[in-house]
Amino acid sequence: MESIEVRVRTGSRLVSDFTSEIRDFCRRHGDGLLNVFLPHATAGLALIETGSGSEADLAAAIDRFLPRDLAYRHTHGSPGHGRDHLLPALISPSLTLPVLGGEIQLGIWQSVVIVDTNVDNPVRTVRLSFVDA
Amino acid sequence: MESIEVRVRTGSRLVSDFTSEIRDFCRRHGDGLLNVFLPHATAGLALIETGSGSEADLAAAIDRFLPRDLAYRHTHGSPGHGRDHLLPALISPSLTLPVLGGEIQLGIWQSVVIVDTNVDNPVRTVRLSFVDA
Amino acid sequence: MESIEVRVRTGSRLVSDFTSEIRDFCRRHGDGLLNVFLPHATAGLALIETGSGSEADLAAAIDRFLPRDLAYRHTHGSPGHGRDHLLPALISPSLTLPVLGGEIQLGIWQSVVIVDTNVDNPVRTVRLSFVDA
Repeated sequence: MESIEVRVRTGSRLVSDFTSEIRDFCRRHGDGLLNVFLPHATAGLALIETGSGSEADLAAAIDRFLPRDLAYRHTHGSPGHGRDHLLPALISPSLTLPVLGGEIQLGIWQSVVIVDTNVDNPVRTVRLSFVDA
Repeated sequence: MESIEVRVRTGSRLVSDFTSEIRDFCRRHGDGLLNVFLPHATAGLALIETGSGSEADLAAAIDRFLPRDLAYRHTHGSPGHGRDHLLPALISPSLTLPVLGGEIQLGIWQSVVIVDTNVDNPVRTVRLSFVDA
Repeated sequence: MESIEVRVRTGSRLVSDFTSEIRDFCRRHGDGLLNVFLPHATAGLALIETGSGSEADLAAAIDRFLPRDLAYRHTHGSPGHGRDHLLPALISPSLTLPVLGGEIQLGIWQSVVIVDTNVDNPVRTVRLSFVDA
């Protein structure tokens, strides 16, 4: 297994597409499974279409599911940080993808994104692990 | 790794159980992990009990989380298509399952289903990838 | 692949941390992927920070997403059991984690937990499967 960490600049964006970094990593390999893993407690991974408005729709949806201004018990950090800690229960920080001949088998409209409501961490680490099989 | 694509007819159903296709594929193998992957941007995979009313309950729940008639930014396709594009952020299109002696180790009440709010695609492709280990 | 079942006492708790059992299992191995799988239809797995209030916040959030007292079609079991059957569609019972040199590569604030709204099953089975790679 080859396992590396990459850094992704998320800034204050909710959705950060890093599909190209993943494609580059997979091309060193052949057939197998790629595990994408975020070692963070306030962000998740998703496969969505980017560039057509779904980023803003997802921001609105998360604000409905997990309103920033509720009275959360988890009160460390910036106001609203309590809801950031619930995000990974709904949007998992682990994602496993099939790879054939070094190409991840995504659909045309699928991009791999970090979903991150926590603006206090502008750079995120992602672990990419490839199991040749 | 053996990786194949199967076609599942979802029609206009929200929930399509395809556990039997998965069992058939696993029986060609021994011990390992099965990755089930949907290369689609408007559907997800879940493990639920089918046949006892949870399909209708899930439909109602998704209509609460992701109402069809909100003003979504993503406005391609049929009315309500904007919410279809948020579904895979909540219900992931990737699912990995343990297999022993060719049998997936599901619980008695677990079925593998496609969850698909998008009625414009009545047939879906699923990729099944088996890592022998 | 080594695959074992462990029993976790969840009692009437929503959130049960079993990271230490997972660490112990991984330490028998080297590099690879760990699949954690719950063969149950009314519970899921999550990676969250524990011990800082997020358990209570998650309980409140699930009560908002999936109110116990709606009129569910799935009516077996205790009152409110209908919503328990929707939980795994939102919080998946399968989770795959990277392991290097026998150590799971969790972030400092991540714990592996069972999320279980179903108080009728005070002990849960978890399957741990390790693919050496």
